[in-house]
Amino acid sequence: MIEATIGRIIERVNALSLPGPGYTRPSYSPLETEAHAVIAAEAERLAMAVTHDAAANLFARLPGRDRAAPPLYVGSHLDTVPMGGAYDGVAGAMALAAAFVESGETPPVDLIVTVTRAEESVWFPVSYIGSRAALGLLTAPELEARRIDTGETLAEHMRREGGDPDAVLKGPGLAAATFVEMHIEQGPVLHKAAEPFALVTGVRGGLRYRNARVDGVWAHSGGAPREERADAVFALADLVTALDRHWAAILAKGDDLAVTFGRIDAASSEHAFAKVPGNAAFCVDIRSGHDAVLDRMDSILKEEIAAIEARRGVIFTLGAQSRSKPAALSAGLNTRIAEGAARIGRSPRHMLSGGGHDAAAFASAGWDAAMLFLCNWNGSHNPHEAMREADLALAVRTLAATFGDRQAKQ
Amino acid sequence: MIEATIGRIIERVNALSLPGPGYTRPSYSPLETEAHAVIAAEAERLAMAVTHDAAANLFARLPGRDRAAPPLYVGSHLDTVPMGGAYDGVAGAMALAAAFVESGETPPVDLIVTVTRAEESVWFPVSYIGSRAALGLLTAPELEARRIDTGETLAEHMRREGGDPDAVLKGPGLAAATFVEMHIEQGPVLHKAAEPFALVTGVRGGLRYRNARVDGVWAHSGGAPREERADAVFALADLVTALDRHWAAILAKGDDLAVTFGRIDAASSEHAFAKVPGNAAFCVDIRSGHDAVLDRMDSILKEEIAAIEARRGVIFTLGAQSRSKPAALSAGLNTRIAEGAARIGRSPRHMLSGGGHDAAAFASAGWDAAMLFLCNWNGSHNPHEAMREADLALAVRTLAATFGDRQAKQ
Repeated sequence: MIEATIGRIIERVNALSLPGPGYTRPSYSPLETEAHAVIAAEAERLAMAVTHDAAANLFARLPGRDRAAPPLYVGSHLDTVPMGGAYDGVAGAMALAAAFVESGETPPVDLIVTVTRAEESVWFPVSYIGSRAALGLLTAPELEARRIDTGETLAEHMRREGGDPDAVLKGPGLAAATFVEMHIEQGPVLHKAAEPFALVTGVRGGLRYRNARVDGVWAHSGGAPREERADAVFALADLVTALDRHWAAILAKGDDLAVTFGRIDAASSEHAFAKVPGNAAFCVDIRSGHDAVLDRMDSILKEEIAAIEARRGVIFTLGAQSRSKPAALSAGLNTRIAEGAARIGRSPRHMLSGGGHDAAAFASAGWDAAMLFLCNWNGSHNPHEAMREADLALAVRTLAATFGDRQAKQ
Repeated sequence: MIEATIGRIIERVNALSLPGPGYTRPSYSPLETEAHAVIAAEAERLAMAVTHDAAANLFARLPGRDRAAPPLYVGSHLDTVPMGGAYDGVAGAMALAAAFVESGETPPVDLIVTVTRAEESVWFPVSYIGSRAALGLLTAPELEARRIDTGETLAEHMRREGGDPDAVLKGPGLAAATFVEMHIEQGPVLHKAAEPFALVTGVRGGLRYRNARVDGVWAHSGGAPREERADAVFALADLVTALDRHWAAILAKGDDLAVTFGRIDAASSEHAFAKVPGNAAFCVDIRSGHDAVLDRMDSILKEEIAAIEARRGVIFTLGAQSRSKPAALSAGLNTRIAEGAARIGRSPRHMLSGGGHDAAAFASAGWDAAMLFLCNWNGSHNPHEAMREADLALAVRTLAATFGDRQAKQ
């Protein structure tokens, strides 16, 4: 039953994508809106009341026994990175609601299947847009951020997909409650350990320069003497290898860190094999479970840049920094979910999340927030990411056993 | 007089360009053909006989006293790299012919202003196309090389611009004679030394991988553990910094070498700040005055790649290698030109050319070939390259004094 719901929803949502490879549903795109409509239709089959907030997030409510108590929000997002993968946790949230409806059990508090907008911050340089909007935390400058492909503002896209940016700013946000997210793990840890799911203790924060560049001096690749060159590609390679060394050193000390240069562009129509490259654009993404490590790496980045500039005669321009805070999830809620898992004979590991997730935004706003990671393989944020629907069904059963008395006894 | 001819021709040729910045006349493009037509019109003003060979190279002949002796070819090319600079030596060749005509002096042998095709090998992965075609050295596989922007073959482009590729293959090439080229220096050596022109002793050879790539594994920038990553950008940065170290070491030993990664492309629609990059395309250009140094660097490149592949779990694919041989220019001809320079009170330095030039193709084919380098600044192969027309006029006067009796006495 749970498996059938999961399979159907994943199939319907993934029919909605820009041309492949992989799946591409940009944040606040018509495709994302259509994916939300799929969930709305599924919710209405279960007679759940569907509403949208001013940011066009979707909420589908199943009434609980105690209507006055803070509700249990269970959900995730449906946007993807460009050419991303096929899996997400929204299908699990709907399957959890369906399990309650089909068993005839009323959940202890209102269960709200939550589908956020715009979680993949590759499209707009803003983190956790939908969930922070729901929480009343999105700011006016953030609404002016432009989508990387269209160049139009977040406010324009939000309005076009049914939202009301002015109302988002007025708030108020949702009252603090409980939020649980099911999501594939981004790394291969669970797959290597052959474990179906895990409980997440916290979410790494990130520090990004998305529009950095280095400018050197164009010259002839055969004629310019070495000592006269200001080669943008050699300078950038120096920076990448320097940060690689620092990354290894910081990990060796036992700190948490990840460094990625996801995009390097020295490939304009002006670049050619016979020219010393005069510029290169790049982005750098630094993540850690600890804010102090992010600060330290930011200092290191700037020190290395100063040294390379002095040595090579180039000029780096980092541009705007975007940043998300590391977030601890709820230890108490994790304990409850671990007990629920034990009731169905499971003992999931506890682990840190490398990727950012909506749950981090709710946790930062003072909610009781938790996450279940699902085993995936072939990596994540790529067309080949893979997940067993049976693993998601196990996570759903764990939550049913955690939050429902009758479910627990099945 | 000489200055007026030079100024007029440079202005007319540079009116022919794709939209800026800089000047772009692709090899075997209609713009290159129009630039050749400018020279043809200038030659016809001087009653010179204009012919084209099967590769659509242009020859404008001024009869000499000894019509049976091997002629003196003086010329250069008119194609440019993308967004290249404004200067070349064809204007000087025409000015030299004009100086003879206007002074009423008959040159000792036939003077043939030569305008080659397709010298800038950024467009087709083949070196010295026009001059090697004129020499009967272009091969059938080379005629199938495709232009980087259009994807059409050299044969197709040649045919469209008035050439006959089949006839190029049949030959025969030009009989050995004398070739002199005037061209801007690619480096800033003459500008720094405040010298107007120099004599070139030889031309560096080049070894290029124009379509190399490295493939890693796409992954989530926050979630993938360091030890699981196969990051294409980190791997490529390792290669760039390794070759930089070797370059410095080889220079320190007194050998001649230049290394350039002119194009790095990790900027597809699949690349994003939140993804560990799964691939990067690049080109590498290695130049030296000595073939053995090119061979040694090729071995070093492959050794470094093997080490990086083992360390990072990536795979490099170098693709086809293109190569041009280092070429020594004629010491005897340089001595004659130095004597000509002395007659007008000049003593130009002798130097090596970092860039490849048509003169190298003629020298390799056994001709007496020489080059005069002209002072330029702001580097070369870029929109800002700059040359004094007065410096080119000095080079022209030097050649007039070298090859003409009456000119020498003026």
